[in-house]
Amino acid sequence: MEAAYEPFRICRTGNRYWSQTVSETVNKQIRLASRPTGWVTADNFSATEEPVRKPGAGEVLVRNIFMSVDPYMRGRMNDVRSYIPPFQVGEVLQAGVVGKVVESRFDGLKEGDLVTGMLGWENYSVSDGRLLRQIPSSSVPLSYHLGILGMPGMTAYVGLMKIAEAKKGDNVFVTAASGAVGSVVGQLAKIHGCRVAGSAGSDEKVALLMDQFGYDAAFNYKTRKSLPESVQTACPKGVDVLFENVGGEIFEAVLWNMRDYGRIALCGMITDYNIEDPQPGPRGMMLMIGRRLTMRGFIVTDHPKWCDEYVRKAIGWLKEGKLNYRESIAEGIENAPQAFIDLLKGRNVGKQIVQLSDVD
Amino acid sequence: MEAAYEPFRICRTGNRYWSQTVSETVNKQIRLASRPTGWVTADNFSATEEPVRKPGAGEVLVRNIFMSVDPYMRGRMNDVRSYIPPFQVGEVLQAGVVGKVVESRFDGLKEGDLVTGMLGWENYSVSDGRLLRQIPSSSVPLSYHLGILGMPGMTAYVGLMKIAEAKKGDNVFVTAASGAVGSVVGQLAKIHGCRVAGSAGSDEKVALLMDQFGYDAAFNYKTRKSLPESVQTACPKGVDVLFENVGGEIFEAVLWNMRDYGRIALCGMITDYNIEDPQPGPRGMMLMIGRRLTMRGFIVTDHPKWCDEYVRKAIGWLKEGKLNYRESIAEGIENAPQAFIDLLKGRNVGKQIVQLSDVD
Repeated sequence: MEAAYEPFRICRTGNRYWSQTVSETVNKQIRLASRPTGWVTADNFSATEEPVRKPGAGEVLVRNIFMSVDPYMRGRMNDVRSYIPPFQVGEVLQAGVVGKVVESRFDGLKEGDLVTGMLGWENYSVSDGRLLRQIPSSSVPLSYHLGILGMPGMTAYVGLMKIAEAKKGDNVFVTAASGAVGSVVGQLAKIHGCRVAGSAGSDEKVALLMDQFGYDAAFNYKTRKSLPESVQTACPKGVDVLFENVGGEIFEAVLWNMRDYGRIALCGMITDYNIEDPQPGPRGMMLMIGRRLTMRGFIVTDHPKWCDEYVRKAIGWLKEGKLNYRESIAEGIENAPQAFIDLLKGRNVGKQIVQLSDVD
Repeated sequence: MEAAYEPFRICRTGNRYWSQTVSETVNKQIRLASRPTGWVTADNFSATEEPVRKPGAGEVLVRNIFMSVDPYMRGRMNDVRSYIPPFQVGEVLQAGVVGKVVESRFDGLKEGDLVTGMLGWENYSVSDGRLLRQIPSSSVPLSYHLGILGMPGMTAYVGLMKIAEAKKGDNVFVTAASGAVGSVVGQLAKIHGCRVAGSAGSDEKVALLMDQFGYDAAFNYKTRKSLPESVQTACPKGVDVLFENVGGEIFEAVLWNMRDYGRIALCGMITDYNIEDPQPGPRGMMLMIGRRLTMRGFIVTDHPKWCDEYVRKAIGWLKEGKLNYRESIAEGIENAPQAFIDLLKGRNVGKQIVQLSDVD
């Protein structure tokens, strides 16, 4: 393309001016304007426009269709060392995105392919092709690939079925059971013939576990006096598989209730995210020997084959109505900050998504 | 056998009288006379004699040839709840024994078979046949089956090779490295092409690790200021496999030095044996997720096939001089208490054994 012969217009981003051919499309973006203190407000964001960048060798230009807003993003807005690097002031924010390939200079992808990856709060993103995952076309809504068919769902499947090797008849316990991951763990456990119990941090969430996600037992860990006794009541036969998202006291309480040959999948330990001041592990780890327990930390992206296996199976379970999933969809990149603010205030029902462009 | 027609004599045990045919053999036994306070003394033991009991259905009569005295027995002399039940006052003490089958009413064993199991401090024991393990005859001393070819050696092999899946090139760390188990772990690690480092509780033990057991690096954990730094110095590339015998601070220090995809075999946690007051686990267990660590408790008796595999292989390694092993042998059941007392005072060199009868 020889730009000099095409009609163009002058655009402005902040103090920077740039030319755009008329055939080009403007890329609307949301950047971190300032770090929030306490609640996030609209002032913490700025909207900018830029020309859509051409992909370089090995890169792919993606038209973003859906993006995910998630609670963990609040942590990334702080300038503290954590398990993922913080967002930078002035930069386009990042999010899990589903989109369609517009132009590819990466061998494994071609125009029209549907992909997902960690891209920007923007209408178009350019990415290293290796960081994108192609998603199959199916009759399941595309946005599901950011939730139940995306990282949270895959994490649930890999942790439960592969890391903890859950099998029919197992007694499964899930901490943070109503979360994006935990709610899928519970449903997958039921699909595979397990009994499943879990803990969550409010009575509303406990009700959700019992009514929506098929849990056999659940309790609010914030209002219980004795966590070990609560686990014992919820799992009278003990726990074969623990899917651990929390750490701290509830982790210890479940550990003490583990059955012989039990397996623990360590998915998250939110009580220990501040690695500057690591917390003690559970007391009584000696019983890991007597009860022959296995504890295994994992990161879902290490297991791409199992993720693909999950997505194929989960599309089937969704169609059969065996997986329950809800989402709220906001419209337009300009509404992403408000969707995120509402999410943090707990105003969403189910997974919060922002739609950035039409699917087709 | 019709006893009424055989010559007999009257014998006495305490206040009890019994008849013995002249063809019968007296069974000399050592019982716990009283619980020791502090150091064990000869007064804590009593010697008795009884007729050799006939095996019932499913039982086996064994002539005991070698028995093992071990430090853990001191703990069993106290009347406290622990990971194994205490010895009872007035009862025959228990020990690991190698012996020869005299009479078998158990299908899997016949007269003349060599067996090992947890039997009594006595010349003859009757045991449920299922609790005995047959041992192969070889040119290796029979007593080795109570040490390097017995539980400690099998524990080292199962933990290192099967539970922690050590492989060539791995950096292995062993706590309590000079112990009965740890000293074998180090040698097995070297045989399998690993680099091996360990910690022990005295400079003498550290010297033993370097000079006798082929360790590449070792330190005295009692005299080091910073354990994490000591581990880092001993294992500059980090630790792929931890064989954990101790728990507590040294466990935490090694955990912090684990490499991605590291494996931890939990064999013992001596700092946590008092289960009435369980100690906190290591701080920073969050890194088990980021580094994808696996931690697995095990009990060697769960893995009989691997134990058999080990004994076969270890006999070969002993003959080739690849495994280094030393033992001291006391003579006669009446000397077992003194051998045990000397062991507790540290007077033994290598594994302490008591010989109870001739091999053939």
